Amino acid sequence: MNSLPPMVKPARALGKLFVRSVTLAHGGGGKAMKDLIDDVFIRAFDGRGLPLEDQARIELADIAARGDRLAFTTDSFVVDPLVFPGGDIGKLAVCGTVNDLAVGGARPLYLSCAAIIEEGLAIDELREIANSMSATAREAGVKIITGDTKVVQRGCCDKLFLTTTGVGVIHAGTRLGVDRAQAGDVVLVNGMLGDHGAAILCARGDMMLEAPIVSDCACLHGLIEALLDAAPGIRFIRDATRGGAATVLNEIAEASGVAIEIDEDATPIRAEVKAFCEILGLDPLYLANEGKLIVVAPAAQADDAVAAMRAHALGRSACRIGQVTGDDGGRVTMRTTLGGRRIVDMLVGEQFPRIC
Amino acid sequence: MNSLPPMVKPARALGKLFVRSVTLAHGGGGKAMKDLIDDVFIRAFDGRGLPLEDQARIELADIAARGDRLAFTTDSFVVDPLVFPGGDIGKLAVCGTVNDLAVGGARPLYLSCAAIIEEGLAIDELREIANSMSATAREAGVKIITGDTKVVQRGCCDKLFLTTTGVGVIHAGTRLGVDRAQAGDVVLVNGMLGDHGAAILCARGDMMLEAPIVSDCACLHGLIEALLDAAPGIRFIRDATRGGAATVLNEIAEASGVAIEIDEDATPIRAEVKAFCEILGLDPLYLANEGKLIVVAPAAQADDAVAAMRAHALGRSACRIGQVTGDDGGRVTMRTTLGGRRIVDMLVGEQFPRIC
Repeated sequence: MNSLPPMVKPARALGKLFVRSVTLAHGGGGKAMKDLIDDVFIRAFDGRGLPLEDQARIELADIAARGDRLAFTTDSFVVDPLVFPGGDIGKLAVCGTVNDLAVGGARPLYLSCAAIIEEGLAIDELREIANSMSATAREAGVKIITGDTKVVQRGCCDKLFLTTTGVGVIHAGTRLGVDRAQAGDVVLVNGMLGDHGAAILCARGDMMLEAPIVSDCACLHGLIEALLDAAPGIRFIRDATRGGAATVLNEIAEASGVAIEIDEDATPIRAEVKAFCEILGLDPLYLANEGKLIVVAPAAQADDAVAAMRAHALGRSACRIGQVTGDDGGRVTMRTTLGGRRIVDMLVGEQFPRIC
Repeated sequence: MNSLPPMVKPARALGKLFVRSVTLAHGGGGKAMKDLIDDVFIRAFDGRGLPLEDQARIELADIAARGDRLAFTTDSFVVDPLVFPGGDIGKLAVCGTVNDLAVGGARPLYLSCAAIIEEGLAIDELREIANSMSATAREAGVKIITGDTKVVQRGCCDKLFLTTTGVGVIHAGTRLGVDRAQAGDVVLVNGMLGDHGAAILCARGDMMLEAPIVSDCACLHGLIEALLDAAPGIRFIRDATRGGAATVLNEIAEASGVAIEIDEDATPIRAEVKAFCEILGLDPLYLANEGKLIVVAPAAQADDAVAAMRAHALGRSACRIGQVTGDDGGRVTMRTTLGGRRIVDMLVGEQFPRIC
């Protein structure tokens, strides 16, 4: 729980805190809603940005100075539990949308945040999540400038869902695309795979497993900027979230009409995550990540790309995991430790729900 | 239920339709999710726009040609029931965000759509809602260009929640603000108040009342454009959604430090809505609208503004409902039919949840 900032008089603050959990009245569009938004969101987001009007306004000249295209992306976050080792739904909602902007080569600028709250959620919990969003956004250099709050009856949603939408600007000349991989290109990652998915499953507790696994949830735009500076020929970058690395690799193979072969020994997966997957019969290549990139680079720039990632705090374990080949378009295979080859298909169903 | 377009071969269509309701696999980020998105959303949104990448890209030059500021707004929609007389959650999600852009003087251009779906929702129902979104967007001249789909377990959300975020452009010179009302200004509306709120409460059925009330859900940007052309001095426009007309009037009075007096006899409310409110002990001034504007205009332009609205299909019953006065800043009063005066306070709690 946050201590109150010194300029807030305790009496007023206590008056506002008298209602300890969110009620339907907080979603009614009236005084109670305004108080909740002021108390939780406006305060967390530094009182600036969130306007009285229902829309935020951005000077076009500020954006045009930095690039020639707008990037626009949205994601809902329904992760369960709301707080987990390495993050919470608020941090995830900021990082997820910042990353969706950044992987397209955009510089993230502004976010909106729409919250759907279940009646009964503790206001202190909501406040902590809003503070986490605010801290993550501040660190990432993006501003949360508009929002919405809805409250639904108990049992009509699970505690809290957040939807963030992001606007960014793409520098003239940046060309990245899932259909740009070519035979001879190299496939890179910026670190250990599967941490987020494993952390959420552990945190949920119904596996009765306790493992010291922390979500990799992080904003990757700084790393991506360094990467594109060092290796401007990069074909494609994608954060490997739902569906994991395997799904991203399959999307590249399909869209570019190429084959991809990855090397099991070269694919970095933490021993704890491997053990966790073995017990549960999961394949870590399908586990979600929230701070991991799959990068396709031309062979000539692969070393520079790896070096640039390793020089960044979020890419210390960056490495090559495979290459793009010309035959068997659309197919992803893995050369296994034992020397065999197996097909890495797209995830057909779902391993576990609500990991993001 | 939609008939299949003739170019789709029945066998393929039947194969895809074999799963009749949304399962958790549809939210997993893999093949099933891609099929659902292709089958429901991409098809509804005309196959164009929704990109393979997680972000949409917009040429800045296209926007800059039309104005000097971006408008950015977001809203979640949790209306219950999903389909109601006069609309459905899909139409509402497009109109609501288009209107939030338009009331600030922005021309709506692009939307994103994030769907949170409860496991078990019929795919046909989802398809109808996606088609409704698409039709509403097409009619409004806006494009849905990116989206997200999450599926949560049965009981973790109520059928379907949609979050739309809109980007629009504001023409240089447009200055509207909730703090710009001045003594002497006139308050206008574009038609009957309270229809949406009353329609939803009737449709929900638990009132056991049947009344022929249809939601006023509509995209108002065309009306607003005509209004601003005819009366460029307009101070402020707001759609009177949650909290109703009373809440918007109070926000204006508070932000502008003025008093507002409205006239009960001049305030247009349908006889059915009045009767409905009398039975339930509700005040129609607090009922939600989804196609009604509160407009503050300088007195000299009020007649032009009313005439412009009446010339538009969505403003046939436009009229003056009151005026802005200088004394008693922040207070909204109503001159009643009986000749008395009563205070119209801001809604404190909530009349009914999930009306939008």
